Amino acid sequence: MKVVFIGAGNLATCLSLEMLRCGFDILQVYSRTEESASILARKLGCQWTKSAKKILPDADVYVFSVKDDALPKVIKAMKPNNGLWIHTSGSTPIDVFKGFAENYGVLYPLQTFSKMREMDFSQIPIFIEANSISSAKQLEQIAAALSENVRFLPSAKRKYLHLAAVFACNFTNHVYSIAERILDEHEMPVDVLLPLIDETAYKVHQMPPIVAQTGPAIRYDKKIINYQLSLLEDSDLKTIYKTMSKSIHKEAEKLNQDEQHQL
Amino acid sequence: MKVVFIGAGNLATCLSLEMLRCGFDILQVYSRTEESASILARKLGCQWTKSAKKILPDADVYVFSVKDDALPKVIKAMKPNNGLWIHTSGSTPIDVFKGFAENYGVLYPLQTFSKMREMDFSQIPIFIEANSISSAKQLEQIAAALSENVRFLPSAKRKYLHLAAVFACNFTNHVYSIAERILDEHEMPVDVLLPLIDETAYKVHQMPPIVAQTGPAIRYDKKIINYQLSLLEDSDLKTIYKTMSKSIHKEAEKLNQDEQHQL
Repeated sequence: MKVVFIGAGNLATCLSLEMLRCGFDILQVYSRTEESASILARKLGCQWTKSAKKILPDADVYVFSVKDDALPKVIKAMKPNNGLWIHTSGSTPIDVFKGFAENYGVLYPLQTFSKMREMDFSQIPIFIEANSISSAKQLEQIAAALSENVRFLPSAKRKYLHLAAVFACNFTNHVYSIAERILDEHEMPVDVLLPLIDETAYKVHQMPPIVAQTGPAIRYDKKIINYQLSLLEDSDLKTIYKTMSKSIHKEAEKLNQDEQHQL
Repeated sequence: MKVVFIGAGNLATCLSLEMLRCGFDILQVYSRTEESASILARKLGCQWTKSAKKILPDADVYVFSVKDDALPKVIKAMKPNNGLWIHTSGSTPIDVFKGFAENYGVLYPLQTFSKMREMDFSQIPIFIEANSISSAKQLEQIAAALSENVRFLPSAKRKYLHLAAVFACNFTNHVYSIAERILDEHEMPVDVLLPLIDETAYKVHQMPPIVAQTGPAIRYDKKIINYQLSLLEDSDLKTIYKTMSKSIHKEAEKLNQDEQHQL
């Protein structure tokens, strides 16, 4: 199956390399900038272009993996062809392709990707959606070549899955980053946090996060909450600390009320 | 070494069970409530009391593992004795024992503990502090029996370590919880998030979180940020989403500026 990649970012890099390993024939990489297009094309051993007009017309599959803001523009700039056009965005509806392609769909891998980290896709949940039965069949074949965990999911649900992923991944990683900043500023080695980070992730395999919650906010240890707030100098960090603690406390109160109702 | 436990919460439960396994002789558990005192005492096969006055006077070590708010009260209520008094709190200074005990210290395990989950302490970083050389020797011996990763750390630094842990663990777990709530509300299975949660934790073993960051906020994908905000109905979640996205974006801008300064 001949594939053209539109985009050369984190996901485009990881997905195209995995497709190459799975036996797909990657013909070309398109990116707005020569640098990213050529770097990825070199890794894949294929052609590249920075002109949407020069995208090869005879591939079977076109994978659009660009910033959501840029997606409609690049779709518009491309010449029509007979390939299956798919994007990899969590939040953009499948209809973004309507009127521009005959066969189209979405392939959304629920994972965080960084260019420098090669990923094994076999355990990554992949959510697909297609505009027709024939597109769905082709898309399912592509997804099944990559992962053992493939499901159909409509755009109306996928947007909430993406939203959940922003909390579970992007915001998680940011609180890791704040924690490291605090240790750095007070001259402590950041790697002491790793067993804690691992256990926090591991625990939610065994119990719901609401049951796994520990710390001053769930105990509503007011003295410690106010003390820790006083240690934070940055006003954004203060806001994050306050809002998160309030939200943890509210969740705990709701859980207690629910349990009382059940008695 | 004979040990009395003051407290029967998550940490007291995990730590006392681990000390029992490591050959310590647990004499007694004290807790304000009969229920938690007796449950833990049964697990440990030891006595229990809910009266601070009835705490046995002839143990070698007294481990205070209670809510920070409650710690000064229970210390005051106890009769003086010759044992080593240690607490396990991240934020309470060692001086809380001053005037109440001769030999005292802090043993702070950097981990999240839940009663129903038995923990192997051997890889948990333990931070200790003592009021004298002899207390320090005894405390180091206790900590080394539990973990291979023991360091001395003064109260003035430990409070920042605890603050960092609240971000890296308590807030992380809470964003997991929010993510699960979103999936639940839209009838999607919550376990699809586990590979994402695992990879997010695993990545920071290999790169700093600031490098690992992905998602709409770091790309500053305004359209998606506003769209996702519009999907959130709960005003607390909106505030968390806004504050976190702003903070991620600010961190990215600072990183870019630092990189430009280095050129």
